[in-house]
Amino acid sequence: MMVRYRITGDEADARAAVAHLCVEQTIEFPADLLRPDDPRRELIGREIELAPSGDGGWFADVSFAVSVTAFQLPQLLNMLFGNISMRPGVRLVDIEVPDALLEAFQGPRFGVAGLRRRLGAPDRPILATALKPMGTSVAELAAMAGDFAANGIDIIKDDHGLSDQPFGRFTRRVEACAAAVREASDTAIYLPSLNVPADRLFEAAEFAKEAGAQGLMVLPGLHGFDHMRALAESDLGMVIMAHPSMLGTYVASPDSGISHRLLFGTLARLAGADLVVFPAYGGRFSFTQAECRSIADALTAPLGGLRSALPAPAGGMTLDRLAEVAAFYGKDVAPLIGGELHRGDRVGNAREMRRSLA
Amino acid sequence: MMVRYRITGDEADARAAVAHLCVEQTIEFPADLLRPDDPRRELIGREIELAPSGDGGWFADVSFAVSVTAFQLPQLLNMLFGNISMRPGVRLVDIEVPDALLEAFQGPRFGVAGLRRRLGAPDRPILATALKPMGTSVAELAAMAGDFAANGIDIIKDDHGLSDQPFGRFTRRVEACAAAVREASDTAIYLPSLNVPADRLFEAAEFAKEAGAQGLMVLPGLHGFDHMRALAESDLGMVIMAHPSMLGTYVASPDSGISHRLLFGTLARLAGADLVVFPAYGGRFSFTQAECRSIADALTAPLGGLRSALPAPAGGMTLDRLAEVAAFYGKDVAPLIGGELHRGDRVGNAREMRRSLA
Repeated sequence: MMVRYRITGDEADARAAVAHLCVEQTIEFPADLLRPDDPRRELIGREIELAPSGDGGWFADVSFAVSVTAFQLPQLLNMLFGNISMRPGVRLVDIEVPDALLEAFQGPRFGVAGLRRRLGAPDRPILATALKPMGTSVAELAAMAGDFAANGIDIIKDDHGLSDQPFGRFTRRVEACAAAVREASDTAIYLPSLNVPADRLFEAAEFAKEAGAQGLMVLPGLHGFDHMRALAESDLGMVIMAHPSMLGTYVASPDSGISHRLLFGTLARLAGADLVVFPAYGGRFSFTQAECRSIADALTAPLGGLRSALPAPAGGMTLDRLAEVAAFYGKDVAPLIGGELHRGDRVGNAREMRRSLA
Repeated sequence: MMVRYRITGDEADARAAVAHLCVEQTIEFPADLLRPDDPRRELIGREIELAPSGDGGWFADVSFAVSVTAFQLPQLLNMLFGNISMRPGVRLVDIEVPDALLEAFQGPRFGVAGLRRRLGAPDRPILATALKPMGTSVAELAAMAGDFAANGIDIIKDDHGLSDQPFGRFTRRVEACAAAVREASDTAIYLPSLNVPADRLFEAAEFAKEAGAQGLMVLPGLHGFDHMRALAESDLGMVIMAHPSMLGTYVASPDSGISHRLLFGTLARLAGADLVVFPAYGGRFSFTQAECRSIADALTAPLGGLRSALPAPAGGMTLDRLAEVAAFYGKDVAPLIGGELHRGDRVGNAREMRRSLA
């Protein structure tokens, strides 16, 4: 399979980095210890092209034997970037996923079309919000969830920091909020934050389903992309939203990490996210318009038979930016307004959000 | 609890970043929407001190209410760095773990003293190696494992890329290598690489234990630190080695990510690692002597009642560097020689490794 890296430095630096990564990401063994006809040499990555990246670095296109991935997500990630993440100046930019590998992934269970059917929203942006702030009583969070669901918000998720604190227990919150959303709306979806210990991940997901939650917000930066995949592909059959907690470092520098497009786009989709939360351009964080566009493109572009997923820009989103958001992304977007939906009258704000995107 | 961040920029940048993170990492809500006497304000982080870091940036010491962590590792990580990882120029440098939080963690099950007892090695460096390269037959990997165990290597792990490839299945490899190590030595420990799908993590660990493996190599960059903790604290009772795959990006830039000391030291230890693999200074990667020292210090410094863990420098380690390694780290180190132990006669090399560190 073809993998593109961006390498920092001059051409000699780039050639050295490519030679290193072709071995490091595969046999991780001194190549001179293998005879020229040793079949294990076939597993070493191959440099296909090295060309200027246009921004002072180099694009290296490397071909890997797909069997090295084991057709499993952890080893795919490990082959793409595991050890070479420790060499400064190497960034994982893009991948071409061959059919034989795509077949190993289910991808989003619902995808954009499935979500639209469930939400009864065939052709408008999807509306999302968060229950917050932490420390709010369960009764008040549930009242909030009910108000949002009754007044046109489609997707209501826990703030991702709502975990299982002494002042706000997971089970009580999830029961109350799931009940409130179901009572208030036939279509709205409540997604608890699966910010729970690793050994209780599936138990918590099953609890949420029993309680009537229709989805889960998963944190792949905490629990790994493959746990998101496992939850998405499980019998639970729940809507999966990906949250970017801890993942910011991967996109912080153009000289290292993983491209926005791949991390929040292709990889999140392979791992089964129906919706992907990421920092909106112009918000509290620093993603650019081009970076946000690249994520949305990767979530909706053809990828074998995999369903597309919805970009959910968040982090400083406001009511007065919704028209611009819809103009930028088109209808396939789920803008997420958190704190600002609580400024003044939340019922009025929810209705205004719905009206402005109808 | 006290948390130190390093912030890039001038003093105004630093003050803005701290004000942002105190709210972002906790209530994630416009603070002006809370009345001055709202108890939820108590959950907001507090800037305790802002001082020049000595390298052109700033150290910000922030105090957080420990209850925000939920006394669970995923939410601890999320509070420390979740969303603020998406703000460029903020690096998580160090934490002071209060007793109330330490009590929630078991830490390393064996630790340095427990490992030494199991290995019958009271006062010398511990010897580690890897089975490689991928594509090698199971019979040959098992023969290799047996040779190393019989000739004085203490810790024999799978290369981390040995997953469950069509050309090298997990179950067959683990059975054969565990048997070979047990047959060759009463003390040597074999650790398969737990590079398996998330939903088969515990099943694979149990399989390895049944097969006679005494430990597990876990990849927290793929499966999350809390899965390592869960495996370490489980009834399996196996030795846990942490591998740094995918974690390099966190330490790639001084302007973002997490310090070496915290990531490969304190956090790995909280998550139950008995041994922690990281790139040796002077090897194929770029860690400095000071960075390696900071990791070793964090693994062995007092941390409540938690046991200490062994640093396992790797990645280009050679026989002729062992004396220097022992001089640098002292006896509490597990140098890991991989590929270079296969240069020439592996039995002779293993004996030489043992002899030079006796």
